[in-house]
Amino acid sequence: MPHIEITNDLPGISGLMAQRPDTGKVLSAVAETLLRSGPSPLSRGERELIAAYVSHLNRTDFCADSHGAFAAAQLDGGAELVAAVRADVATAPVSPLLKALLKVAAEVQAKAAPVSDEAIAAARAEGATDTHLHDTVLITAAFSMFNRYVNGLATEVPADPAFYDVAAELIVEHGYGAALAT
Amino acid sequence: MPHIEITNDLPGISGLMAQRPDTGKVLSAVAETLLRSGPSPLSRGERELIAAYVSHLNRTDFCADSHGAFAAAQLDGGAELVAAVRADVATAPVSPLLKALLKVAAEVQAKAAPVSDEAIAAARAEGATDTHLHDTVLITAAFSMFNRYVNGLATEVPADPAFYDVAAELIVEHGYGAALAT
Repeated sequence: MPHIEITNDLPGISGLMAQRPDTGKVLSAVAETLLRSGPSPLSRGERELIAAYVSHLNRTDFCADSHGAFAAAQLDGGAELVAAVRADVATAPVSPLLKALLKVAAEVQAKAAPVSDEAIAAARAEGATDTHLHDTVLITAAFSMFNRYVNGLATEVPADPAFYDVAAELIVEHGYGAALAT
Repeated sequence: MPHIEITNDLPGISGLMAQRPDTGKVLSAVAETLLRSGPSPLSRGERELIAAYVSHLNRTDFCADSHGAFAAAQLDGGAELVAAVRADVATAPVSPLLKALLKVAAEVQAKAAPVSDEAIAAARAEGATDTHLHDTVLITAAFSMFNRYVNGLATEVPADPAFYDVAAELIVEHGYGAALAT
């Protein structure tokens, strides 16, 4: 049961955003900019994959499963690729660059400390630019926020896992702003 | 030295926001809504104090010192009160309610897990409403983001600590949107 009263039946951050549209609006803008509309050398699917992976490391099922669905809908490997990354980045069929960026993400997820020179150098060796590194660190930082918000207040996961697929259709087609307006 | 090239001489998140105005704009809106313009039973000074405390726990000097200055400028106890909270919440001269909320914040800072029933009950016993709890959790979550962004990319602290006082004057008077525009 959530720690505060949610006067709607939406799960996870959806319920919190509907409950508090003032904060929901700015949080939605962060997700839209970082994961979709902002310029990035990372594709939308890759950015969602980083979000899903960080949420998985933070054991935030709602975010891991929803962003996992959004990643799957926008990556060639689909749900199998997302599951492989969640199981073990080292053996997952993603590019060496993305693998190195996921290691950077894991460091940022673990604590608010400078990413190690080794992880930065490894990513650079695979072709990471300043923008790859910036976007990876900021997406990971943002999910350190979203995950704490969703888990800290003990929100619920959807009763029906089909929720994630419906959300994926909405987000992929119309973006995070549209999701908030529903 | 920062992990990415910052083509301006601004320290901490200020340099990152100027470097990337697309993400800077939405991050600034988060700070403005959570710490200043959004409705909250917590005063602006109290919200900045939570931000400074979380940043202190995350060892992010730039954020702890800047939001510490913003808190000091808006709280009766000033810089001494902020220093007392950073040194030891248990003995700091803040209200029992704020003390209980800072304990909630410390739990959310530590990990993305549900706040303990004990910490929630202790805050409720001191008069915490759903909105107190929501805002405390979300401010803490947001600084779990800001701190990781600032520290993860190894940004620099100001060469002159007077930077924080100048920033405080700007933020207290004009808000986070104005700070971004400078």
